[in-house]
Amino acid sequence: MTVESALLRDDLVSEMAILGRAARNAASELALAAPEHRDAALRAAAGFLRSQSESILAANAADMAAANAKGLSSAMLDRLLLTADRVEAMAKGLESIAAFPDPLGRILEERERPNGLHITKISVPLGVIGIIYESRPNVTADAGGLCLKSGNAAILRGGSESAQSSGAILDCLQAGLRQAGLPEAAIQCLPTTDRAAVGIMLTMNDSIDLIVPRGGRGLIERVQRESRIPVMAHLDGICHTYIHAAADADMAREIVLNAKMRRTGVCGATETLLIDRSATESHLPAILKSLDKAGCEIRGDETVQQLNIGVPVKAAVAADWDTEYLDSIIAVKVVEDLDNAIAHINRHGSQHTEAIVTGDEAAATQFLNRVDAAIVIHNASTQYADGGEFGMGAEIGISTGKLHARGPVGADQLTSYKYIVRGSGQTRP
Amino acid sequence: MTVESALLRDDLVSEMAILGRAARNAASELALAAPEHRDAALRAAAGFLRSQSESILAANAADMAAANAKGLSSAMLDRLLLTADRVEAMAKGLESIAAFPDPLGRILEERERPNGLHITKISVPLGVIGIIYESRPNVTADAGGLCLKSGNAAILRGGSESAQSSGAILDCLQAGLRQAGLPEAAIQCLPTTDRAAVGIMLTMNDSIDLIVPRGGRGLIERVQRESRIPVMAHLDGICHTYIHAAADADMAREIVLNAKMRRTGVCGATETLLIDRSATESHLPAILKSLDKAGCEIRGDETVQQLNIGVPVKAAVAADWDTEYLDSIIAVKVVEDLDNAIAHINRHGSQHTEAIVTGDEAAATQFLNRVDAAIVIHNASTQYADGGEFGMGAEIGISTGKLHARGPVGADQLTSYKYIVRGSGQTRP
Repeated sequence: MTVESALLRDDLVSEMAILGRAARNAASELALAAPEHRDAALRAAAGFLRSQSESILAANAADMAAANAKGLSSAMLDRLLLTADRVEAMAKGLESIAAFPDPLGRILEERERPNGLHITKISVPLGVIGIIYESRPNVTADAGGLCLKSGNAAILRGGSESAQSSGAILDCLQAGLRQAGLPEAAIQCLPTTDRAAVGIMLTMNDSIDLIVPRGGRGLIERVQRESRIPVMAHLDGICHTYIHAAADADMAREIVLNAKMRRTGVCGATETLLIDRSATESHLPAILKSLDKAGCEIRGDETVQQLNIGVPVKAAVAADWDTEYLDSIIAVKVVEDLDNAIAHINRHGSQHTEAIVTGDEAAATQFLNRVDAAIVIHNASTQYADGGEFGMGAEIGISTGKLHARGPVGADQLTSYKYIVRGSGQTRP
Repeated sequence: MTVESALLRDDLVSEMAILGRAARNAASELALAAPEHRDAALRAAAGFLRSQSESILAANAADMAAANAKGLSSAMLDRLLLTADRVEAMAKGLESIAAFPDPLGRILEERERPNGLHITKISVPLGVIGIIYESRPNVTADAGGLCLKSGNAAILRGGSESAQSSGAILDCLQAGLRQAGLPEAAIQCLPTTDRAAVGIMLTMNDSIDLIVPRGGRGLIERVQRESRIPVMAHLDGICHTYIHAAADADMAREIVLNAKMRRTGVCGATETLLIDRSATESHLPAILKSLDKAGCEIRGDETVQQLNIGVPVKAAVAADWDTEYLDSIIAVKVVEDLDNAIAHINRHGSQHTEAIVTGDEAAATQFLNRVDAAIVIHNASTQYADGGEFGMGAEIGISTGKLHARGPVGADQLTSYKYIVRGSGQTRP
């Protein structure tokens, strides 16, 4: 490191420390703010998103031009792009978060002890949450809104490609906070998109309580490796749909097609299809034909390759059972029975979302109990793995860890709790 | 590192990996074991503790002889010592854990979605829990028992001083597991008390899901620094009792005396007394006299030093407000009002347990809401900070972190959850 860059880094460290302290102070204020004020700030921010739509789109156009010049992929450009509809969707999203019940002050447990002590366990905010994401600018509004709803201060770090768009959205969120009389520092962005700032952020365990990374595997791995702050995330979504011998053939076909092809880039998309050997002839041809027709590449084990049903099947290799394609590709494996399917999933799955299709209730119960995953599904598509679909309103992500929150993470999951003990002079014997 | 020690380390790493895999396999089996079997194992283990009491005491005598020869302090010797009564208490402890309701399979939430999907959130085990503790051999039974109750496999690492005692207790736990038809590897100890084994253990994030350290600050700090596995713990218990102007004087005196002196070595013991300036003359003399009579050293701020009530008061220095004495010492500070008290606690407290004594309900509510701690108490002793006193049966420790469990950690807190989704062929639009 040169003397100059060392000085610049020192400056950045102090700037980040100031930002961290501001977040901590804002979090203390937010924790005590009435729910009406937090909701008012969300609704005001939605109003500003609408009234500032033109300047947000102008900022986004500048980001898009720079991204085009850099030659980003069309998938990345699509993630970066904002339209009037997408801005309206962000505004609606904030309003729907505002309409949800208050996640704070919920009575989680209550008990009276024999000595007369009255103990209540109530939900409280976590504190300060750091969110690190990639190019989607709408995460700025979603994540900032969920943190605000749950009384947490947010420190956001979006991708450098979306810096101007995110900045314009942040302005609206902060204007909403001001209008509701809440501290602006409740939602902040990092002062620079310099990668060094992320490194510093991940060491700020005095001022940040939780890191939520959203993005590709590379980002998540880096964050998990470097962070001195607890991280809530999922690394992979290697989800399976298992067609049991007693599955209805039409239901199986429709569920698999939806689970794989509705959207291939989401973490709840099915990557591997398992099917009982006794159902291969009866069920598999129609499933593979519909996948093929929808443009899905099929990679099968030996039995599948030998089916000869006029659908191209590539040979699956060992790595296919451990790959999250996030693309129009599916791995297909024939299993002997339920035990075999469960063993495969517990070995190769990523504890995200796993589904069984069967008409046999006992087999379904076995599967739901014995598969170790955040979400286990009977007779429905794995693409339901989503906070909105679970009735949580919005989600900041899906966690595959077992500590704190597991599965979709909404406002309720961004809380901790405290025990309130009320006595009348009790001393402990 | 010499070639020889490197080879020994390689051996230890492989031995630890085998132990980790055995724990992971045992955890899978335990997660599916019926509650009757887990409880039967706990009761059988209690029976073996009783029938093997003599050999446990003989093992403990050997540990005590070695500890005496090493010149350990009398406090450490007392923690290490087992008696027939203490063995019986361990057996009773296991039976009381067995008698508690099953922490697994609890329905935490249940909802029907408009599309007909039925979502149930149920409690499941965390997996494998590593417990690192110091000289108390009874932690072997308590921690092993709580993990077993909650369907988690346990990897225990007790202090080297208590190795023989812990080994004899482990034998009883494993005999209980065998008798109930459960895998012995559900509760294991490290193969050696070599410190290097702890270092290896803290990197085994593939086979251990959570580390719970129990012991002094040095141990906790080392574990938090080195662990690549999430750690649940509390570093300090700097607990305050605040006497508000509207406190009943007798109640204040009795609560402070109990909060400080009932047991000075527990984390819920009060370390700092705060008192409103307007209550110093009316309330403080009796409080300080009773503390002094009980053998407590008093370190006061200037106002307290000038009280002149015939009780020796040392001058408190800045460090006193941030010290966990775990001893018969109390720091005493006069505050102007409730705001002042809350600000002091939120700055100097360790987010463990904080109490207010007052007859003023509004002041109490302000305190309970605004103090940021795992446990906040009105009109009772801070020494109630204990899982048993909270009605949890037993506790593995107290957490001051806000992620996952906060406050006393019992069997319920050693669980995660999964979402079970039941459909009838739903595909996502």
